[in-house]
Amino acid sequence: MSEPTTEQELGITKSKEHETGEWYAEVVRKAKLASYGPEGMSGFIITRPRGYALWEAIRDDLDEQFKSTGVRNAYFPVFIPESYLQREKDIIEGFDPEVAWVTHGGHDELEERLAVRPTSESIITPYMSQWIRSHRDLPLRVNQWCGVVRWEATETKPFFRTKEFLWQEGHTAHRSREDALEETFRRLDQYESTYEDLLAMPVLKGEKPEHDKFPGAHTTTTIEALMPDGKSVQGSTSHYLGTSFAEAFDITYADEDEEQNLAHTTSWGISWRAIGALIMTHSDDQGLVLPPTVAPEQVVVVPIWQSDTKDEVLEYAEELTAELEEDGVRVKLDDREGRNPGFKFNEWELKGVPLRIEIGPNEVDDDELTLVHRPDGESTVEDRENADETVQDHLDEVYAKLYATAEEILEDGVREADTRDEILGTIGQHGGYVKAPWCGEEACETEVKDQIAAEIVMVPFEEEDDLADGDHDETCAVCDDDAERTAYFAKSY
Amino acid sequence: MSEPTTEQELGITKSKEHETGEWYAEVVRKAKLASYGPEGMSGFIITRPRGYALWEAIRDDLDEQFKSTGVRNAYFPVFIPESYLQREKDIIEGFDPEVAWVTHGGHDELEERLAVRPTSESIITPYMSQWIRSHRDLPLRVNQWCGVVRWEATETKPFFRTKEFLWQEGHTAHRSREDALEETFRRLDQYESTYEDLLAMPVLKGEKPEHDKFPGAHTTTTIEALMPDGKSVQGSTSHYLGTSFAEAFDITYADEDEEQNLAHTTSWGISWRAIGALIMTHSDDQGLVLPPTVAPEQVVVVPIWQSDTKDEVLEYAEELTAELEEDGVRVKLDDREGRNPGFKFNEWELKGVPLRIEIGPNEVDDDELTLVHRPDGESTVEDRENADETVQDHLDEVYAKLYATAEEILEDGVREADTRDEILGTIGQHGGYVKAPWCGEEACETEVKDQIAAEIVMVPFEEEDDLADGDHDETCAVCDDDAERTAYFAKSY
Repeated sequence: MSEPTTEQELGITKSKEHETGEWYAEVVRKAKLASYGPEGMSGFIITRPRGYALWEAIRDDLDEQFKSTGVRNAYFPVFIPESYLQREKDIIEGFDPEVAWVTHGGHDELEERLAVRPTSESIITPYMSQWIRSHRDLPLRVNQWCGVVRWEATETKPFFRTKEFLWQEGHTAHRSREDALEETFRRLDQYESTYEDLLAMPVLKGEKPEHDKFPGAHTTTTIEALMPDGKSVQGSTSHYLGTSFAEAFDITYADEDEEQNLAHTTSWGISWRAIGALIMTHSDDQGLVLPPTVAPEQVVVVPIWQSDTKDEVLEYAEELTAELEEDGVRVKLDDREGRNPGFKFNEWELKGVPLRIEIGPNEVDDDELTLVHRPDGESTVEDRENADETVQDHLDEVYAKLYATAEEILEDGVREADTRDEILGTIGQHGGYVKAPWCGEEACETEVKDQIAAEIVMVPFEEEDDLADGDHDETCAVCDDDAERTAYFAKSY
Repeated sequence: MSEPTTEQELGITKSKEHETGEWYAEVVRKAKLASYGPEGMSGFIITRPRGYALWEAIRDDLDEQFKSTGVRNAYFPVFIPESYLQREKDIIEGFDPEVAWVTHGGHDELEERLAVRPTSESIITPYMSQWIRSHRDLPLRVNQWCGVVRWEATETKPFFRTKEFLWQEGHTAHRSREDALEETFRRLDQYESTYEDLLAMPVLKGEKPEHDKFPGAHTTTTIEALMPDGKSVQGSTSHYLGTSFAEAFDITYADEDEEQNLAHTTSWGISWRAIGALIMTHSDDQGLVLPPTVAPEQVVVVPIWQSDTKDEVLEYAEELTAELEEDGVRVKLDDREGRNPGFKFNEWELKGVPLRIEIGPNEVDDDELTLVHRPDGESTVEDRENADETVQDHLDEVYAKLYATAEEILEDGVREADTRDEILGTIGQHGGYVKAPWCGEEACETEVKDQIAAEIVMVPFEEEDDLADGDHDETCAVCDDDAERTAYFAKSY
């Protein structure tokens, strides 16, 4: 990759707090995570190796969770015939305006247009129908890691808003509503675990309001993550589809008494938007910040020498690097000539390496290491002995710090309101989530949306929602009718 | 998955030797590797979990080899603007008749048509051009695992001939011809290793004749595998592209003296055709045969009981299964009720499980195991103690047997010819490869092709080709002009 040659090219010039959008774009570009697509293809991005490595980390983590709980991967075609897309009416209504259409193969016009998949229910479900005969074939679970295309004409924001994005889509069929709901929640919990244990991001779980569900879904559950700029990101969704797809595509099974029943299906997905949320959550005005769990390089060793100390410093640094590498640490020795240590510090900070180890003549003489944490710059001197354990401890500390900071933002970011004006005022002033009693009508969300572009991003699950039992006298914060649920209003990505 | 309910549904009815094409299709379907695409999408397949698991095994093996030799994964858009495709003239000539075109996004017609990628040089190379400034940026290596579409109107053959296929495409840039050629051969060697050490398939390496190179390539190297029906499969290719793409897309770098030079590029790929070759090579009239390295289940334990021995047999089988599982063996216990052992044997043979362990009352009494190899049915009784080592030894034996059989077919399958009639006669009678001196002209290949649809699939590398030094008096087997190289003629997939 082309090396930046001046401090200016290397450094981030925008402020995360004051110019969030420009700052984000600059971090993505200068940390070499992604490039914008070519002319004529606005909305598409090139995911560069440093960006793709983050996707691989997320994929590997989830793939293992899925496989250990009965999911197997498969691959369905990139195209879906228009007539298939039309078979589930909510799907075609929901996605038709966003479909990229293939009309020609080679020099011939096709008899039927083919949609580049915007999501694959319409082609996966008919095959499930073929594969399922009896209750012994259930549950049936398939997943695919692939790209999908949705032709939205909005401004491009790498990983957050792109016309093509990478994701995984899981599709399952079950005997009963209970089994399918259990599946829906199991996958949501697995996404939560990836956010919390891999990406150092605490999240909220809940369901989408009726009017914002996935097309055709009975229930859409969601992971919501609060960004430092006060906006919510929908981090992944898991849908209980009821029997609507089973009806449209005829998925029936014979039970023990040879009676035919409709299967209950689910689908669930996470996209590379998780990378966007990761960048946005932890990074700062020096550049990218990554938890050690996903960082391509967890540790950079920077030797600091004068001409008379060069040999001993380099030898010490090389031995340390080799030892850490052998212990499975992803470590990089930056022994480039012609770059001063300050330049190297800045470059690796920009690229999000969680731990820097500085080795100078003092460290060599005292048989020590100087360890510096990203992002807070905390510096510690430790014994050279047992470097592998020391490094692991510090990587864990960095993870804990990132998580704690994000947790504080989330905890401080949930406020309450009882009136429309309070909702508007609180979000306007602080951002974040505002919890308010809600009647359940879309109109009341629309009223808020029209004023400040905030919407209901989440409703807590019934068992966690005091208002859901109906046994109370609260009224909707917007319209004053009886409140049925608690709504989390927020601006969102 | 729906269970077959009769022996007839379970068994393979076609003969590999006499009805190879139908037999192949039947194995793919009944072993649940793939299904055919929906109406209106002939040429597309659904890769079912048992098929996709094979792709995952191939991918994981190569991905590790690539990453340990400096390759990093990336992801480029699924679409390529028509004008980009046109910038390298050989690419557009080579692929234009096979491109699927996106003409509409949502309800709007696009200003410029977008090709669904048939291969990605045309979009990857311009970005390489942006990323490369100086010799310090070289070598640059990126790879992507993705699907590509080529609209060929031929009969569908799962994994061999499909309009969409999964593959990996690696793209690299280097300072010199030497570096780029070294890269080209390194990747070819890695493909060879995957065929030989993962898929139990010995292969030949060589280069394609001038007229059959990848569009725009200087040299196309190839892995060729001989199928038992006497046809050759192009198993993967690795191209030295010279400077033609660097010229078309302006990849230049400054060397130490700040002089601008064109980079030398390569590309290399393997597709899921490797799965087709794997199935074709090892499988038989009982169904799928898989080497233990890639088999989703390496071992199936089948308990054989009468009502009075059921408890002890099952307990013994369960303990064995748990022990093997703990040792990392992919093992399945088939304790289904209502299926007799013969039915189970057939089913797991069909699905390609390399090793069956039968546990009956005798095995329990004598503290033994009966192990049966797929495909030759060789049965051995071994001590129960150290089952993990015993099983590993038998899995290794199965691998060795598969490899030896394939090796024999390859060794017997290379014959020589000195005249056109000998070429035609030998291929007509035996299939396989026929080595013949060749002048280098396409016309001489065409003469053979027109007669028996055999072509030159491979030319040995110069250093292995006695004819390549020019110091000989052999003449082309077809036209009698001076022979320049040795050609391997064969029918091919």
